Amino acid sequence: MSGDANCEGGMEEAATSKQQETLQRKKNAILVDGVILNGPVADSKAGEKFVEEASKLIMEEVIKKATDVTEKVCEWQPPEKLKTLLDLDLKDTGETHQRLLKLCQDVIRFSVKTNHPRFFNQLYAGIDYYSLVARFITEALNPSVYTYEVSPVFLLVEEAVLKKMIEFIGWEEGDGIFNPGGSVSNMYAMNLARYKYCPDIKEKGLSGMPRLVLFTSEECHYSVKKAASFLGIGTQNVYFIKSDERGKMIPEELEKQVQRARKEGAAPFFVSATSGTTVLGAFDPLDEIADICEKHDLWLHVDASWGGSVLLSRKHRKLLQGVHRANSVAWNPHKMLMAGIQCCALLVKDNSDLLKRCYSAKASYLFQQDKFYDVSYDTGDKSIQCSRRADAFKFWMTWKALGTTGLEERVNRALALARYLVEEIKKREGFQLLLEPEYANICFWYIPPRLRNMERGPEFWEQLHQVAPTIKERMMKKGSMMLGYQPHCGKANFFRQVIISPQVSREDMDFLLDEIDSLGRDL
Amino acid sequence: MSGDANCEGGMEEAATSKQQETLQRKKNAILVDGVILNGPVADSKAGEKFVEEASKLIMEEVIKKATDVTEKVCEWQPPEKLKTLLDLDLKDTGETHQRLLKLCQDVIRFSVKTNHPRFFNQLYAGIDYYSLVARFITEALNPSVYTYEVSPVFLLVEEAVLKKMIEFIGWEEGDGIFNPGGSVSNMYAMNLARYKYCPDIKEKGLSGMPRLVLFTSEECHYSVKKAASFLGIGTQNVYFIKSDERGKMIPEELEKQVQRARKEGAAPFFVSATSGTTVLGAFDPLDEIADICEKHDLWLHVDASWGGSVLLSRKHRKLLQGVHRANSVAWNPHKMLMAGIQCCALLVKDNSDLLKRCYSAKASYLFQQDKFYDVSYDTGDKSIQCSRRADAFKFWMTWKALGTTGLEERVNRALALARYLVEEIKKREGFQLLLEPEYANICFWYIPPRLRNMERGPEFWEQLHQVAPTIKERMMKKGSMMLGYQPHCGKANFFRQVIISPQVSREDMDFLLDEIDSLGRDL
Repeated sequence: MSGDANCEGGMEEAATSKQQETLQRKKNAILVDGVILNGPVADSKAGEKFVEEASKLIMEEVIKKATDVTEKVCEWQPPEKLKTLLDLDLKDTGETHQRLLKLCQDVIRFSVKTNHPRFFNQLYAGIDYYSLVARFITEALNPSVYTYEVSPVFLLVEEAVLKKMIEFIGWEEGDGIFNPGGSVSNMYAMNLARYKYCPDIKEKGLSGMPRLVLFTSEECHYSVKKAASFLGIGTQNVYFIKSDERGKMIPEELEKQVQRARKEGAAPFFVSATSGTTVLGAFDPLDEIADICEKHDLWLHVDASWGGSVLLSRKHRKLLQGVHRANSVAWNPHKMLMAGIQCCALLVKDNSDLLKRCYSAKASYLFQQDKFYDVSYDTGDKSIQCSRRADAFKFWMTWKALGTTGLEERVNRALALARYLVEEIKKREGFQLLLEPEYANICFWYIPPRLRNMERGPEFWEQLHQVAPTIKERMMKKGSMMLGYQPHCGKANFFRQVIISPQVSREDMDFLLDEIDSLGRDL
Repeated sequence: MSGDANCEGGMEEAATSKQQETLQRKKNAILVDGVILNGPVADSKAGEKFVEEASKLIMEEVIKKATDVTEKVCEWQPPEKLKTLLDLDLKDTGETHQRLLKLCQDVIRFSVKTNHPRFFNQLYAGIDYYSLVARFITEALNPSVYTYEVSPVFLLVEEAVLKKMIEFIGWEEGDGIFNPGGSVSNMYAMNLARYKYCPDIKEKGLSGMPRLVLFTSEECHYSVKKAASFLGIGTQNVYFIKSDERGKMIPEELEKQVQRARKEGAAPFFVSATSGTTVLGAFDPLDEIADICEKHDLWLHVDASWGGSVLLSRKHRKLLQGVHRANSVAWNPHKMLMAGIQCCALLVKDNSDLLKRCYSAKASYLFQQDKFYDVSYDTGDKSIQCSRRADAFKFWMTWKALGTTGLEERVNRALALARYLVEEIKKREGFQLLLEPEYANICFWYIPPRLRNMERGPEFWEQLHQVAPTIKERMMKKGSMMLGYQPHCGKANFFRQVIISPQVSREDMDFLLDEIDSLGRDL
């Protein structure tokens, strides 16, 4: 297909001279509404060549550089400047292939390299060659996973992956669905619990129903609140449970809050525990929370979007002790297991088709019942989506490549590196841990020399609060690395270092601390 | 990275002999929790080679075959058989690269080629080389679009694409967000309308609120019902409006239903009109519906997931006459404009930050306010998701490549081909149109010779009802083409042919009819 837009068929007006020529050349040429309908119009040879050239560019500029620490993590430009550097406008006429390749190059150049070994900014990082190949395959095949008819392989792959994840949770059976994010998984779970609590709500809605109340810790992901709002439950009906100093939900406080809701005449129905909180990486005590849920007949959901992957590590899976008692679990292999954004499963213990009963709309144009194969394989009606991406496949490919043992080693290595960094932080002057971490989030302050001997009073914390943002600005402008900072629960801005990728080593940990010191010692 | 899982760091036990060797070889080698932390463990050269080999496979087996009509659309296998043909199980140890490539080959082999010129089964089809390149780039870069800091380019690209789409809707300004599907877009819109109607619901929920009621046509997409259930409104509070024989909502019926809801003491708040219905491809009369919405102060949402793309055609955009009066529009460029699943925008007329006010949760770990750049570019808090894919980019790339004119020509050509097919159906014995289409869905029955002279009574329709499923089974087993069938509004099973791709030509239309006749004439 050529960049010249005019190659793609007819215009509004009557046949142009180019068309006249084609009409004369082609036998049985047909012109309808000013469009010649004979033969495909897209130039596939040119299109294939363009894909080949662009693929080379991607290999050189993205994939091969992904492991090169001498490359920049980002080439920072402020928004208004970047707009002028990129040719963003969409115009009437198309661009040539040469020009398009230049555009691709610019897009890559000014994008953050989240696969760079020194990108520690989010709960995903690094490059996994296997999931990447799976992703290229699905992009080329462009499937939508709703019926066996159009997605035979990807539906079976999803089934196999869900089955294995369910095994690692410790359930004998279960159900599940891959969906576009941990936030959406949490919504799915909340709605499923509501349906179980009162199936009538699906048809009648919440108006005239008692006030539903749910519980989660102060340290939970913000999506729980978003879900409560979206589902019509209301953010005020999320009762936040106090956490201890390590960020873990305090079970006694949960018990109190459930009783409070009961006294208020509200209807408690759902607890969302967190395994691996976003900032501190804390794991709620699932067994004790499960006891309370059982006692009060509440649905226990575990948001293990970030922490779920430790289930693959025999050494560390005790962090999720009790997870098998949950009714549902959210688990994102795109985080610690590097399956690529997005790869998120909601897993459900119930195996009585609850997902389907809760979500089905029985569209007859898609889920025909008179198909020639077993339509129980048409799982799309379990979803809130219609088109759905084949996200399970990329995780399946990585698992196939590494085996459970290989995945386990990745988790163990990330946590060993975290342990190393913690010990280094303890040794170094000017670095202070927020708390002793149990997972791959290491939260710490950097205290510049000027502040080191200052009394730890309001003035100190106020000044320290300015330090992390300034160091962040400097590292972005230099492009040497990226890690996040935030204030949290009244505490001054601190860094959150996240360790995931097997491309990362001890040397990067040392670099990280050296670099922070070098960028911040004059502050 | 080797397929040998053991290459990836340490085991649970103390250092193995391999590790002992490494420890002796490496200076300053560090062992923590049985894991050697020096140097990256992933073998990037082997990984890159694997990506290169797999990319060749994808080019040969998927991309180059995508335009070859002599290839099969699918190689049909029933579910239980396919399970035995594929090695789906996830094991403890990993596989070699050679074995993984074979797996990739099998996955491709048994997958439906949705990019085949004779895949007419869904509302997406074909291959677009430009969007494909963009998709490879985003998979390699693995961005998440929530903050400018981690996604500078993709946030600006999204802004540029939304701006252009808003221009084609005919609004002077507006807002929007790319999200995972038309179904989710419809949910976004419904919740936004509810927020506008009563902002308190975000915090207080629906319990104790009047019964909210919304309106849509009988022909709407099933996601409207799913949304009402998910949002806690309840499917009974979706009032379905009668459509005329062409599938268009009857405005007078809408007026009646709004008045009925008012009389019942309910709170009408939202109308979802459809531009391009899923089965018949019908367009609701937007101007007349907008009049009623204005009169009753109702939010007008237009689900143009399928039909929105005709806005780019000067010839056909009259199908959406009045769309500029909508409060929100769902539009999926992954359908008619071939941007690849998923590429879906919700567009909102309001420009007073309604999206942000409705959806924000102000997570301080992600949306820090003390960043060194203008944080109004951190648009992630408008979303119900946290991680979000860079879906706008693939549409941007195609638009850049073809220009508006090129996109317009694609739409015009698809509709001209549809027109051609309609005329052929009228000419051929045994083919009967369900209705005169106005878009790219052509709905028709094939009547086998045996039934042609039968009286059009219940017996005829009952027998005809069996015909399409049998032909579908035969075409799937042969692999010659794929198109959908369904019953609809009490009508016997009929075929729905959908025309999208510029790889399709008049010859494919002729083939389609010949093939149906050849597969079904003995029925």
